[in-house]
Amino acid sequence: MRPIKVVVPFKLDCAKSRLSSVLSSEERVKLALAMLEDVIDAVSGLGEVAILMKDPIPEGDSFDRLRSRQSFDILECPRELDPALNAMIAAEEEKGWPSDLLIAMADLPLMRPSDIHDLVGTPGDVVIAPGRGGGTNLILIRNPEFRVSYYGLSFLKHLKKAEDLGISAGIFESFRCSTDIDEPSDLVEVLIHGQGRTPELLKDFGFELSGRREKARAGCLR
Amino acid sequence: MRPIKVVVPFKLDCAKSRLSSVLSSEERVKLALAMLEDVIDAVSGLGEVAILMKDPIPEGDSFDRLRSRQSFDILECPRELDPALNAMIAAEEEKGWPSDLLIAMADLPLMRPSDIHDLVGTPGDVVIAPGRGGGTNLILIRNPEFRVSYYGLSFLKHLKKAEDLGISAGIFESFRCSTDIDEPSDLVEVLIHGQGRTPELLKDFGFELSGRREKARAGCLR
Repeated sequence: MRPIKVVVPFKLDCAKSRLSSVLSSEERVKLALAMLEDVIDAVSGLGEVAILMKDPIPEGDSFDRLRSRQSFDILECPRELDPALNAMIAAEEEKGWPSDLLIAMADLPLMRPSDIHDLVGTPGDVVIAPGRGGGTNLILIRNPEFRVSYYGLSFLKHLKKAEDLGISAGIFESFRCSTDIDEPSDLVEVLIHGQGRTPELLKDFGFELSGRREKARAGCLR
Repeated sequence: MRPIKVVVPFKLDCAKSRLSSVLSSEERVKLALAMLEDVIDAVSGLGEVAILMKDPIPEGDSFDRLRSRQSFDILECPRELDPALNAMIAAEEEKGWPSDLLIAMADLPLMRPSDIHDLVGTPGDVVIAPGRGGGTNLILIRNPEFRVSYYGLSFLKHLKKAEDLGISAGIFESFRCSTDIDEPSDLVEVLIHGQGRTPELLKDFGFELSGRREKARAGCLR
């Protein structure tokens, strides 16, 4: 199998703002870091992992866990998501495409190494794992001509991009890869199906399952 | 492989009430029927299919499509969901368990025959396909002692029930099987990933993708 380089875009500025009704700003940063850690654990069996950040890691205890891990590189790039990623793809293309690229979002704490194994086993010049609501939660790029476009309904945009280039697109549909954590109603998924650092943190914050099932509400109580 | 009987509980009374902000009562009935049709198409390769209804099918044009299909039986039972299903399980147990039972929810329009094939290939005395928010979207019962409990976080309740009985529980995690359509924000999944009668109906209603991705809002416009 060709080598794969994993890139996880991550930002701390306004991290997880749609959770502000249930979590303080400091808690949201901790949650974002816990999810990042779980994502790194899921992907790190593939090989080299790089965290793509717009800003440097700030000072502060919250970041000690992240800093203490030696299993990834940090790439700082002040550009927005699409230009930052596309510049990286272009740079790999210039180098002769030494490895395929897997771009994984940082808010997928349910993902396990077995999900990544199945994704990587899916054929296609690009392989896309859709997120809920039309997003792209992971994309494996095997063709250096591909470029990403994350805003809006990126799942359909990425399919269209592959079609325009005349390259094949595989779709990897997965419960765990589709579950990105953005909103209060998503937290219940972590408490029910999560296994890593993120459910542990939510329990530390005082969240517990409420017995009621309502997607519109939290499904869990604090 | 042992024969499998499929049961799809279905109700028209207050059907899909959480969609009332975007669909009229008549439209919600049509949507519920379209989703039921897509579910029947996904499961009917397995064998006998029964629709479990609390009330008889009313008169009216909307039901002609359903009535005209000959591929399933209708079972009327005035009891609530859990007692109705558990009475059915007990009756099959009395008969010596002639076939395993697959209970499929009626609001899973993304499901395809291949998903059902994979579910049925999963080992376990029961096999549970979780829904979003802690629900049970499908459950395959291979042990006649099992009983269902659908209200609340039924995924966890069903796991517990299997544990209490000392029988094995398989978990079938699937993007398509986990996507139940309850709320306005779910409709975008149908428009993006659906292939049967349901996306066709939503387009007839005037829904289209909006290009914005926001799980809290509809993600689609009318």
